[in-house]
Amino acid sequence: VIYVITPTYARLVQKAELVRLSQTLMHVKNLHWIVVEDSPVKTQLVSELLAQSNLRFTHLHTETPKEHKRKETDPNWLKPRGVEQRNLALQWLRENRELSNEGVVYFADDDNTYSLRLFDEIRSTKRVSVWPVGLVGGLRFERPLVEGGKVMGFYTAWKPNRPFPVDMAGFAVALQLLLANREARFDLLAERGYLESSLLQSLASIEELEPKADNCTKVLVWHTRTEKPKMKQEELLQKQGLGSDPSIEV
Amino acid sequence: VIYVITPTYARLVQKAELVRLSQTLMHVKNLHWIVVEDSPVKTQLVSELLAQSNLRFTHLHTETPKEHKRKETDPNWLKPRGVEQRNLALQWLRENRELSNEGVVYFADDDNTYSLRLFDEIRSTKRVSVWPVGLVGGLRFERPLVEGGKVMGFYTAWKPNRPFPVDMAGFAVALQLLLANREARFDLLAERGYLESSLLQSLASIEELEPKADNCTKVLVWHTRTEKPKMKQEELLQKQGLGSDPSIEV
Ligand SMILES: O=c1ccn([C@@H]2O[C@H](COP(=O)(O)OP(=O)(O)O)[C@@H](O)[C@H]2O)c(=O)[nH]1
Ligand SMILES: O=c1ccn([C@@H]2O[C@H](COP(=O)(O)OP(=O)(O)O)[C@@H](O)[C@H]2O)c(=O)[nH]1
Ligand SMILES: [Mn+2]
Ligand SMILES: [Mn+2]
Repeated sequence: VIYVITPTYARLVQKAELVRLSQTLMHVKNLHWIVVEDSPVKTQLVSELLAQSNLRFTHLHTETPKEHKRKETDPNWLKPRGVEQRNLALQWLRENRELSNEGVVYFADDDNTYSLRLFDEIRSTKRVSVWPVGLVGGLRFERPLVEGGKVMGFYTAWKPNRPFPVDMAGFAVALQLLLANREARFDLLAERGYLESSLLQSLASIEELEPKADNCTKVLVWHTRTEKPKMKQEELLQKQGLGSDPSIEV
Repeated sequence: VIYVITPTYARLVQKAELVRLSQTLMHVKNLHWIVVEDSPVKTQLVSELLAQSNLRFTHLHTETPKEHKRKETDPNWLKPRGVEQRNLALQWLRENRELSNEGVVYFADDDNTYSLRLFDEIRSTKRVSVWPVGLVGGLRFERPLVEGGKVMGFYTAWKPNRPFPVDMAGFAVALQLLLANREARFDLLAERGYLESSLLQSLASIEELEPKADNCTKVLVWHTRTEKPKMKQEELLQKQGLGSDPSIEV
């Protein structure tokens, strides 16, 4: 089973993002989608979307503590996002799965783009596997550098001295390894860029990483970001009490 | 058969967009994808993506004439995009299909988000069908207003006096209607916002429009737009001759 962990939060494009991600996941056999809302309650929007998707899923929620939440005006890198949500999913796995259950865990943000071929690569993860991620870190791609089947370093330009200069979308972890290391989790206070390292440091060394995607030469996932839609007309109409029908879900 | 016509052009996110769109279309039965590259040749990237998709497809190309092409620095609404590409697809249908062939034609840009339920709605189009589009025109959604099963007007804020104030993603046309009206096409010189009208005016009147999606009360397609990825590190490295390996496709 591939456990796909997706943190998500309410915004104008949320449903669109979850619709296209769910349509990708629907192609993947033996998949279990753990969706964790950054919200004080499970919303109707996400609940119905999951129910209608025909996917095997678990629906959780936990609100990011106020003091860690990014404000509209903060630059988008100021605070880590989705951290407590991913940790809650890890906790759920530890409470609901046993060492005898086989599986691989992948952290899939709701706005990235995933090729179906990625899931074939993920499936054979023994401990921790890694591969390239497109359109990230100010580069066309970041990737592990492989020699003789072993990861020898990383092609990355931004803070290259991080312990694991790997994007969230660029690795998967065996379920058993997470169950055996019950303290491994993401650090909410990790410095920018160090979130992935905060988990991976307790799980593997660089030499142990398993390179996927033809020795890390193929890009099968893209760190796409969706524009925030402009709502100029909506705001003008709302001032006149003529905003769009709020009962129509978008 | 639903003929989905997608204009597309080379840019950093092109492959990502086409990957996730193809993964949506792969769920739809009896679909034929007509992909038209805005390019002087068919590119290897698009050719391979189509070949690997298992979709029924036709791959065409035509470059937008220089004088109509948008420059990097132009605002994104200055020139219509994908116009000659959509017209070439119409020409292909007229040359390769006959009045006895049943089908519906839908214009699906590569960056929008489509719910699978949309294709169920499209399939029953008799002449011209319409439905809401999310996140467009500065509003949460634009939509046709329906009374007694008939379109009586439109909820839209931007240039509401357009003959058909409908986004490209918000209508479908029966193949037979396009074959019977061989002159109907998009006008490359149409004023901003009038592109859809330039085709629809020769095909239907407002009263004839067939409302879909529960009398146009459900949003099943979203006019999402993808951020242009920042390439700051890539540009710095390229200046030192250390840019990312160009043989790795992104
Ligand atoms: O306040 C927030 C912001 C983001 N996210 C989720 O965390 C993940 C990463 O966020 P984002 O894509 O905005 O980060 P970036 O693209 O900048 O890495 C996504 O799945 C978001 O839906 C969240 O749960 N709460
Ligand atoms: O020079 C261009 C620009 C755009 N397009 C295609 O035309 C459609 C509409 O373009 P875009 O999504 O940029 O328009 P907008 O979102 O602003 O309506 C998309 O399928 C693009 O891939 C194209 O073929 N050539
Ligand atoms: Mn993201
Ligand atoms: Mn678009």
